[in-house]
Amino acid sequence: MPHIPLPSDLPGIRGAMAFRPETARPLNALVEVLLQGPGTLTPGERELIATYVSSLNCTRYCHSIHGMIAAAHLGGNETLVRQVKTDFTQADISPKLKALLAIAGKVQKDGKLVTRADVDAARARGATDIEIHDTVLIAAAFCMYNRYVDGLDTVQPDDEALYRERGRRVARDGYVTVSEEYLAGHAAAVAR
Amino acid sequence: MPHIPLPSDLPGIRGAMAFRPETARPLNALVEVLLQGPGTLTPGERELIATYVSSLNCTRYCHSIHGMIAAAHLGGNETLVRQVKTDFTQADISPKLKALLAIAGKVQKDGKLVTRADVDAARARGATDIEIHDTVLIAAAFCMYNRYVDGLDTVQPDDEALYRERGRRVARDGYVTVSEEYLAGHAAAVAR
Repeated sequence: MPHIPLPSDLPGIRGAMAFRPETARPLNALVEVLLQGPGTLTPGERELIATYVSSLNCTRYCHSIHGMIAAAHLGGNETLVRQVKTDFTQADISPKLKALLAIAGKVQKDGKLVTRADVDAARARGATDIEIHDTVLIAAAFCMYNRYVDGLDTVQPDDEALYRERGRRVARDGYVTVSEEYLAGHAAAVAR
Repeated sequence: MPHIPLPSDLPGIRGAMAFRPETARPLNALVEVLLQGPGTLTPGERELIATYVSSLNCTRYCHSIHGMIAAAHLGGNETLVRQVKTDFTQADISPKLKALLAIAGKVQKDGKLVTRADVDAARARGATDIEIHDTVLIAAAFCMYNRYVDGLDTVQPDDEALYRERGRRVARDGYVTVSEEYLAGHAAAVAR
């Protein structure tokens, strides 16, 4: 049971966002620009970074939903997503993405662990400055989203089908569009 | 030297934000609503939570600047800010804020460490649901800002006077106002 009264029909971060629409808006705007905004990393690659960091933080809601959004962007390849969660070094992904995931994994622990050698390795595999920047910020941002979801003890279902269905919708319609629907409906009804 | 080419005259998160204004806007909007938006925790209390979490993450730029913003909100009491960084249990702050800082300290490690007992203790000392929510999200958000600042190896000066001067301006004018100044000036000039 969540630590504060969140709407019971909205799992994970969705309940927390409905509880506090004032903070939900910048949280949604950030994830939208980072994961689905214009950029040279594909949305699938960016979702894999978010999924990997969330799995390192053991936040089931986040690594499940972003894993399913990643899969939706990658032609439904859930096997690849599982491989990235368990050992990305063996996954069928580009050397560039592997180098970026290595940076993301260090940021998850502590940003100070990222070395010039890590960054040079990513550059040698084709990563641009903006891709390196965005990798660091995606990893940092999911250290926030994961702690937010866990710190309020939000409901984190274990039904894969639920994440799969929603993952497809977010991949298709975007974060802000999908979220505004329930923010509009719930904000007024939530007891303070 | 930063891992990517950031403007050399902007320390800490300011250089990273000037490099990538698209992500700077939601990052600024989030910190503005969390730390200076309407709420029953004073801006000084909220800045102390941000400062404490940043000091746990050992991110000098963040704990220095937010410590100075906190001090500016607290009549210039830098001694109190230092006490919160070193051992908040002995600081001259309310029992409610101590209970919230205990929650923030757990979120800094892992949101799953926050227990019902921690939340009940905060409630018994007068904390509301929104104050508990905001404490969790401030702590989570600074786990992001800290990793962002550290993960890019941004410049983090050790000149206290620099933080003091800027802390006063942010306390007076707000995050978005102060940041839009340099975002407008720098965005066009930054080499990609």
